[in-house]
Amino acid sequence: MYSINTRQLIITKKLRTKVHNQTKNTENNRKMHQTILEELLKLNDDPRVHGVYLHLPPAALTNRVLNSLKPEKDVDGLLKDLLKCFCFCTGFQQLTEHRYIFLHRAVGSLVLSSLHSLFSFIVRQNVVRSCTRWLQEQQYKPWRLRSLKLQPLTPVPSDLQISRAQTAKPVNHLAEEIGLLPEELEVYGRSKAKVRLSLLERLNSQPDGKYVLVAGVTPTPLGEGKSTVTIGLVQALSAHLNLNSFACLRQPSQGPTFGIKAANNLVAAAIDARMLHEATQSDKALFSRLVPSVNGVRRFSPIQISRLRRLGIIKSDPSSLSPEEVNSFVRLDLDPEKITWHRVVDTNDRFLRKITIGQASTEKGLTRETGFDIAVASEIMAILALADSMEDMKSRLGRMVVGTSRSGTPVTAEDLGVSGALAVLMKDAIKPTLMQTLEGTPVFVHAGPFANIAHGNSSVLADKLALKLVGEDGFVVTEAGFGADIGMEKFFNIKCRASGLRPNAVVLVATIRALKMHGGGPSVSAGAPLPTEYISENLNLVSGGCQSNLKKQIQNAQQFGVPVVVAINVFRTDTPAEIDLVCQLAKECGAFDAVPCHHWMQGGRGAVELAQAVKEATSKPSYFQFLYDLQMPIVEKIRTIAKRIYGADDIDVSAEAQRKIDYYHEQGYSTLPICMAKTHLSLSHLPERKGAPTGFVLPIRDVRASVGAGFIYPLVGTMSTMPGLPTRACFYDIDIDPITEEISGLF
Amino acid sequence: MYSINTRQLIITKKLRTKVHNQTKNTENNRKMHQTILEELLKLNDDPRVHGVYLHLPPAALTNRVLNSLKPEKDVDGLLKDLLKCFCFCTGFQQLTEHRYIFLHRAVGSLVLSSLHSLFSFIVRQNVVRSCTRWLQEQQYKPWRLRSLKLQPLTPVPSDLQISRAQTAKPVNHLAEEIGLLPEELEVYGRSKAKVRLSLLERLNSQPDGKYVLVAGVTPTPLGEGKSTVTIGLVQALSAHLNLNSFACLRQPSQGPTFGIKAANNLVAAAIDARMLHEATQSDKALFSRLVPSVNGVRRFSPIQISRLRRLGIIKSDPSSLSPEEVNSFVRLDLDPEKITWHRVVDTNDRFLRKITIGQASTEKGLTRETGFDIAVASEIMAILALADSMEDMKSRLGRMVVGTSRSGTPVTAEDLGVSGALAVLMKDAIKPTLMQTLEGTPVFVHAGPFANIAHGNSSVLADKLALKLVGEDGFVVTEAGFGADIGMEKFFNIKCRASGLRPNAVVLVATIRALKMHGGGPSVSAGAPLPTEYISENLNLVSGGCQSNLKKQIQNAQQFGVPVVVAINVFRTDTPAEIDLVCQLAKECGAFDAVPCHHWMQGGRGAVELAQAVKEATSKPSYFQFLYDLQMPIVEKIRTIAKRIYGADDIDVSAEAQRKIDYYHEQGYSTLPICMAKTHLSLSHLPERKGAPTGFVLPIRDVRASVGAGFIYPLVGTMSTMPGLPTRACFYDIDIDPITEEISGLF
Repeated sequence: MYSINTRQLIITKKLRTKVHNQTKNTENNRKMHQTILEELLKLNDDPRVHGVYLHLPPAALTNRVLNSLKPEKDVDGLLKDLLKCFCFCTGFQQLTEHRYIFLHRAVGSLVLSSLHSLFSFIVRQNVVRSCTRWLQEQQYKPWRLRSLKLQPLTPVPSDLQISRAQTAKPVNHLAEEIGLLPEELEVYGRSKAKVRLSLLERLNSQPDGKYVLVAGVTPTPLGEGKSTVTIGLVQALSAHLNLNSFACLRQPSQGPTFGIKAANNLVAAAIDARMLHEATQSDKALFSRLVPSVNGVRRFSPIQISRLRRLGIIKSDPSSLSPEEVNSFVRLDLDPEKITWHRVVDTNDRFLRKITIGQASTEKGLTRETGFDIAVASEIMAILALADSMEDMKSRLGRMVVGTSRSGTPVTAEDLGVSGALAVLMKDAIKPTLMQTLEGTPVFVHAGPFANIAHGNSSVLADKLALKLVGEDGFVVTEAGFGADIGMEKFFNIKCRASGLRPNAVVLVATIRALKMHGGGPSVSAGAPLPTEYISENLNLVSGGCQSNLKKQIQNAQQFGVPVVVAINVFRTDTPAEIDLVCQLAKECGAFDAVPCHHWMQGGRGAVELAQAVKEATSKPSYFQFLYDLQMPIVEKIRTIAKRIYGADDIDVSAEAQRKIDYYHEQGYSTLPICMAKTHLSLSHLPERKGAPTGFVLPIRDVRASVGAGFIYPLVGTMSTMPGLPTRACFYDIDIDPITEEISGLF
Repeated sequence: MYSINTRQLIITKKLRTKVHNQTKNTENNRKMHQTILEELLKLNDDPRVHGVYLHLPPAALTNRVLNSLKPEKDVDGLLKDLLKCFCFCTGFQQLTEHRYIFLHRAVGSLVLSSLHSLFSFIVRQNVVRSCTRWLQEQQYKPWRLRSLKLQPLTPVPSDLQISRAQTAKPVNHLAEEIGLLPEELEVYGRSKAKVRLSLLERLNSQPDGKYVLVAGVTPTPLGEGKSTVTIGLVQALSAHLNLNSFACLRQPSQGPTFGIKAANNLVAAAIDARMLHEATQSDKALFSRLVPSVNGVRRFSPIQISRLRRLGIIKSDPSSLSPEEVNSFVRLDLDPEKITWHRVVDTNDRFLRKITIGQASTEKGLTRETGFDIAVASEIMAILALADSMEDMKSRLGRMVVGTSRSGTPVTAEDLGVSGALAVLMKDAIKPTLMQTLEGTPVFVHAGPFANIAHGNSSVLADKLALKLVGEDGFVVTEAGFGADIGMEKFFNIKCRASGLRPNAVVLVATIRALKMHGGGPSVSAGAPLPTEYISENLNLVSGGCQSNLKKQIQNAQQFGVPVVVAINVFRTDTPAEIDLVCQLAKECGAFDAVPCHHWMQGGRGAVELAQAVKEATSKPSYFQFLYDLQMPIVEKIRTIAKRIYGADDIDVSAEAQRKIDYYHEQGYSTLPICMAKTHLSLSHLPERKGAPTGFVLPIRDVRASVGAGFIYPLVGTMSTMPGLPTRACFYDIDIDPITEEISGLF
């Protein structure tokens, strides 16, 4: 009936054996106690052990033993019952260890055996009771969230000041409030914790909560506040409407990125080292090094067996390979001109955009041109965000294509022999990081793939964990990068396909500023003061923006069958007439609802209206459908996105792009979804064309593939994967007080 | 009398004011309670608040408020006393919040005022009592270490199997056992925690424990086991002799290196970006970007003020600078040929040893040759290991010289404006990481500088924290890289100078294998099978090694006035006669004692004899002295080390080296200590010369400086700062089980 019993019994048996072996030598009771104590403490601390059911020789049952086992692991309560009965029978109320042993020797097994029938009854009852208790503990727990109060100030202070004025709950308190078990948490410092994926197994039968995507209109270069709306919305839901909710955000790049860089650069180092070794060694020398004789025995490692299988060689004895088979096994024969894998670094280091490596004499003239990207642009980051288990991540890492051989075969990370090591380097990164909003509501921060050459969404695993945790009536609010034409389209066609999750609503963030820009306002650029159109009422421009960009982005969401709530991220300079106009026009354009949000100033209280609209929208049935079928030819998939989402008349595929498309088709990659690398500043490929441009043909300059992440990415323009540093970088202002450790100079 | 009162009072006052402002509006009691609760929870969680002494209006004293304040922070017990009295007077035993408020309104301040004199007595008594309690908590706490039992097996299983068979104590339990306060700990996962430096302040008046260095004879390429001796020794001391002890180890390179790489590469990115901006902008443009007008005001940042001061410009108004002053302020004028700063990466990536950067068109032709080092070779790692506070680290980071200007002036990290940002990136790395041995005794793992171009010792801060924690009668065992001629010499002359700490004993690790090699045995190399001389008895070779290398290394330690205990790290193939011979000869050569160690097979139990010898040695007075005075000329310092430690006849300084020495002298760096970059495989510069070579002249090929770390490093040979990957790298075997997360393929 209770599957847990098997595990308990194994452990019990192990313990009994150990103790039994010790007690044969009855001379040293202390030694026996020590052994038992050690074992109990291990069992206490072992998260895989859910309960301990002890059968021990009577002499082993001292007070210290009794007090060592954690109450929550004490499956049968036998020890305490036994001692109680014993005390009752012997008249002793307080037993010290010494007294107990003395007593045991004096009274011996007589008393114990007379109590035997009573014990066996208690034991049976307790086993049933404790298994029931364990099963209950594993069930979904209703939240007991204690929200933190905000005291909004006017004028609104800096982010840094606001954040400092609030004291976060210890993360283990937060975890307990939202029903996480202690063994599912790996605390990192006071306010962050990694959450183990075993949660998905425990809450497997628990229905998911509502799944809400926050997307946006086409933004100005200043950004329109999708992340703040995401946070405001969950604060409103959890702290003001008492509905369970979780925000899932992407991780900023200079953060606790764990193994990503090391994993990415291990692949790069392995590529170049392998080319060197192949260039300087014979087949025989390579083979004897790759499959060395250890104590006279040569053996393939599992990863080498995988490579042999891919080569069609079904052998496992190294000595049985023919010279041709050895040749194809030892030579990846990478074409230095066709290596697509870049190194990464977590700093804006523009001088690494294009470099020549291998110039030291030790590298024997094997120089080649390559480059570094910023860490988040790594395919490994996209994999981290799309994987839905450790196993899935591992196989995606193995499938990553790093280049092609001289004969045109794709060479993968598994061919290089690094895929297991990559998974090891990523084993902590795969667990989402639990943090909290200013109002003490839970947030997962996890992964941060680029939104152009990758899909720009927070991780599948964070969303999945959160959907279980919030429960059936709760909400998970997740964010997609850039405008809805990019982030939302990729969320639906790439991320939802990978995860199998279905969204219940889209929140489309708009600002009066962005709408005015789309309505024909002057250009907006970072650093320059805003033109007056943007800081005084102009209903004309607002209306123009609503009728063009906002309307098109609403329709884009509707093509997927999902209801849209427009959230106006209100600025101080916005007028009531402007806000009312957007609400009215958005609804006319097909939005389920449209509401102003004041979370920037008021926290969750300022987004209560949005929360109510979202609650209402998700209570309606949604009819989600993908935009295209994966079986369509690559070109047709690209054309579908260009025409239906961007409003293009057609696409124009360059010769280079067509060559790549044919190659990917040949290699069997044509059923992958499409991840468009297009500017986020326009629905078209031309950043200066605002509103909802029409009458343009989208050029497809080049096409690349992230086979491990699982998408093909057409390049519409030039995408920078390594930012630069300005003349006066922000580091000039950043400092730390050596005594208080307070950091200054952040925003 | 109690200085803590000031802080308490400030907090109390703040709280009272907040509550007072709220209660003016008596209409909303709930609101007031909410405020009080929030504040109390913040105070509970704030590690800077050691106790809270509350004065609140009576209506605020509900059960919820009473239960919110943590007992250990409840300075006066006032609340509970008050309620008790109140219950007594009113006859109510159980007060719900609602009832209380009702009561208060009915009975009012009459009852309360009649209780006033009783209260003030209780309050005064409690304040004294609680301050005393707080002071007691701050005192040094005796350890209550629970050691873990080992069950050694024969044959000894792999490291990975041994490590898996043991369950570590949760790190917070360990921390409590060794007297750390909860607020001094930052837990990272289950088995690691960072320890805050505030500990040094708390235990300031606590005398240090004994300070023991583990060094070694000149090793074979296989290593002779200094780290295992270090661990065995602390296990023996703590788990078998019940003496407090701490091991301080260096951190392996692919570990939780936190900000080091990011910090190092930020400097590199800043250098190249700065050169680009200087090459493409006029003085005026540079100045207006470096000191931008924000809301019409131009202001220097503190780091820019520091640069002005170094340039001798005592002005703080940007508009008051003359064109010449602007020019010298905005132009670092770095000479691209003389940039010494390298980028780093945490992977063995040989193709990055020498590279050309800046080849993308965006970098406008400003290409230059540079290279990457492995992360641990960064000067920042050496700084981390030598800093003795956050402040010290910050100023060392600022002093780092990254290159020279075209006019020959050193350019520092502070000139680049990055030193504050570097300190921020390193704020977690500076805290030592607490871990434990297999027997549950404490270990600090912290920093891991190279032992050739840097000093190769574990960190000053880890040693200092550990010396306080073990208490006056405890032991801190710290390790130095390579043979005693390198690691120990640098420990004494560089690390002890930086820290001010004085060692009580040196443990010199020797193996029969290494001694036989020094006695004339055939050469030993990694990968090749050991010649028979090393696996069968050969007293002649052993004796030769003792009379040469062992003797010289013992004498080297004695030159510093510190007693030496020789620890023979026993291998299975060593014979009793060989071991006895080493013990006898070592003592004849001047060792205080010499003992065999079996910790590899038996854990701490196998090092009990060593522990006793170390205890004995440290009980004797030691007469520590440095080998050279810092005021000596650079060349003389180098010569002293070469002659007295290595046994050289003299040194031969190349022209290039002499030029650098003169330049460093000119720049005021001549009083820095010396950090020799020499092979560790011989006392001389020739790896093949074993034993104690004589009759050689040590060539000084080049001289460099790590001004931030604070040493000059002469290069005796070519030092590789970027390892390569072999044809079959260990990653082929590394894998992770996706379900159990168990890692395979490690050693």
